Amino acid sequence: MRGVVMTAPGIIEVTDREEPAIVEPTDAVIRLAATCVCGSDLWPYRGIGGPVDHQAMGHEYVGVVEEVGDAVRTVKPGDFVVGSFCYSDNTCEICRSGYQSRCVHGGFISDVGTQAERARIPQADGTLVATPGAPAPDLIPSLLAASDVLGTGWYAAVAAEAGPGKTVAVVGDGAVGLMGVLAAAQLGAERIIAMSRHADRQQLAREFGATDIVEERGKAGAKKIRELTGGLGAHSVIEAVGTEESLMQAVRSTRPGGHIGFVGLAHDGVNLPMDRMFGAQVHLTGGPAPVRRFLPELIEKIWNREIDPGRVFDLQLPLAEAAEAYRAMDSRQAIKAMLTF
Amino acid sequence: MRGVVMTAPGIIEVTDREEPAIVEPTDAVIRLAATCVCGSDLWPYRGIGGPVDHQAMGHEYVGVVEEVGDAVRTVKPGDFVVGSFCYSDNTCEICRSGYQSRCVHGGFISDVGTQAERARIPQADGTLVATPGAPAPDLIPSLLAASDVLGTGWYAAVAAEAGPGKTVAVVGDGAVGLMGVLAAAQLGAERIIAMSRHADRQQLAREFGATDIVEERGKAGAKKIRELTGGLGAHSVIEAVGTEESLMQAVRSTRPGGHIGFVGLAHDGVNLPMDRMFGAQVHLTGGPAPVRRFLPELIEKIWNREIDPGRVFDLQLPLAEAAEAYRAMDSRQAIKAMLTF
Repeated sequence: MRGVVMTAPGIIEVTDREEPAIVEPTDAVIRLAATCVCGSDLWPYRGIGGPVDHQAMGHEYVGVVEEVGDAVRTVKPGDFVVGSFCYSDNTCEICRSGYQSRCVHGGFISDVGTQAERARIPQADGTLVATPGAPAPDLIPSLLAASDVLGTGWYAAVAAEAGPGKTVAVVGDGAVGLMGVLAAAQLGAERIIAMSRHADRQQLAREFGATDIVEERGKAGAKKIRELTGGLGAHSVIEAVGTEESLMQAVRSTRPGGHIGFVGLAHDGVNLPMDRMFGAQVHLTGGPAPVRRFLPELIEKIWNREIDPGRVFDLQLPLAEAAEAYRAMDSRQAIKAMLTF
Repeated sequence: MRGVVMTAPGIIEVTDREEPAIVEPTDAVIRLAATCVCGSDLWPYRGIGGPVDHQAMGHEYVGVVEEVGDAVRTVKPGDFVVGSFCYSDNTCEICRSGYQSRCVHGGFISDVGTQAERARIPQADGTLVATPGAPAPDLIPSLLAASDVLGTGWYAAVAAEAGPGKTVAVVGDGAVGLMGVLAAAQLGAERIIAMSRHADRQQLAREFGATDIVEERGKAGAKKIRELTGGLGAHSVIEAVGTEESLMQAVRSTRPGGHIGFVGLAHDGVNLPMDRMFGAQVHLTGGPAPVRRFLPELIEKIWNREIDPGRVFDLQLPLAEAAEAYRAMDSRQAIKAMLTF
């Protein structure tokens, strides 16, 4: 089958990869309907975070089940499914507490590489959720978004305790930040401040529910958030970048007792000064989003056309042109690129 | 009046200080019944965290109101009062959300220096809580503990979401850590693991409600916590030290989705590696405890003799011997030293 391989930082090839097959009785094999490039794929693309040598890429996916292992009970061949970028049994104590991204028997789908025609999904029962039927083609981008960026933005908004009466600030105007805006709006936030200096992303943020835009960054950005909130800071802040500057921008933008949901992938060497955290007295939580926790609800909202997160894909290319998809996202010409078959 | 002054790091003098007086109409002046030395007083004593030059010391206090400003309504001369180490109006939006330690019109009582015969307490209505009457002498140590260490340990336990069904680990066996043990027990925690290698503190921890003791520290300590919790880690971790090592010990001891309440005073240069935080996926909150939030409840529990936090004072000295109190705590011969009049 054809699939994306990063042969070295910055080098994307679409090449023949081994056909996936059932290995464990809990596996499923799916045929992809769509996949996409993640902001986190750009880290190795840019040579950050360790060596890269012929790595199969991709961890976001929707598609049709082709085959299941003997132990799989909840999905069957022919089902259209959405899955999280983490696989999970959804039955262990950690999963049951809502942290499927840290399942005791789980792992990362990135090891599978879903930028490909077919993919093996481990722990199918605890990872995949079937849609009510075959989706209309225009729903596919939104269902694909649920696999990672929507689920991640949703988790960030929940972690930041966005909700009625709350002012939410969003640091980062990438796909996850924009999905955080959408999630905060869906969760009933009173005011949503998107921090962005790009007109196209500001526009999309407004369409997703942002009530205010702040163009300033860093200390100046946090000062602006405090000015907009009676000097106190936002109740809830979504951090969707992962650098020291963006994290401190989030800390400084949050009122005492407020909540930060951080989902920007922080790399080695990103440190949070704890004297500042002590003084700021905020709540901080984050990490890889337990997307599986939210999937049934997100699929329902998409199916009923209550939300349209698929608009975050501003570039669609066939799988064969994956290299161009990476290039466009790396240069910020595209917010998020979908790959089709 | 007589009061404690730190003339330079390591040098404690009891000397004549200016008599306090009402400055603002919201002030009260109290005569101290007891005061004490805080673990945080040891930082400047050891020359850490900036220069020291004839600094009036102390921020923990119980005593009798002698005088109040014209605007004070809730306490009156003759009342026996307990107050937080932070002053607060208890009416601003941040106070009403439970973060009186970050009151918009608040500050630190350490600027007043309560290791003295009398003290001016700003924002008396929002800072002081009167006891139901004159306390029995044996209740005074416990009421004094409520002013900081008990209130701080309580906040840490609440921030760590200690409660029924939860396993709580406590990093730090100083007075605040021991009060965290007591608080976790009062909040109904199922299992409380005190991390300590000192027999006397282990004993006190057990008296306060610890069910297990772990003597290992750092990675080995966290490994032991995971062994005791089915490989998962504690639900709730109290961090009461404030160093990078103790913070990472706390992070490593917490299960995914678990909660850390950190109240150890972190100084400049203490950094939390955010790649670890991202991977650990814990909740982290802390800072100066909003003791005022808990004072009415804590006073009631002490008054009704449900808790006896005053046992944390294992040294009592007259104010004139404050230098010895500092020395004993600095050398860890005493857990916490009370100063009497």
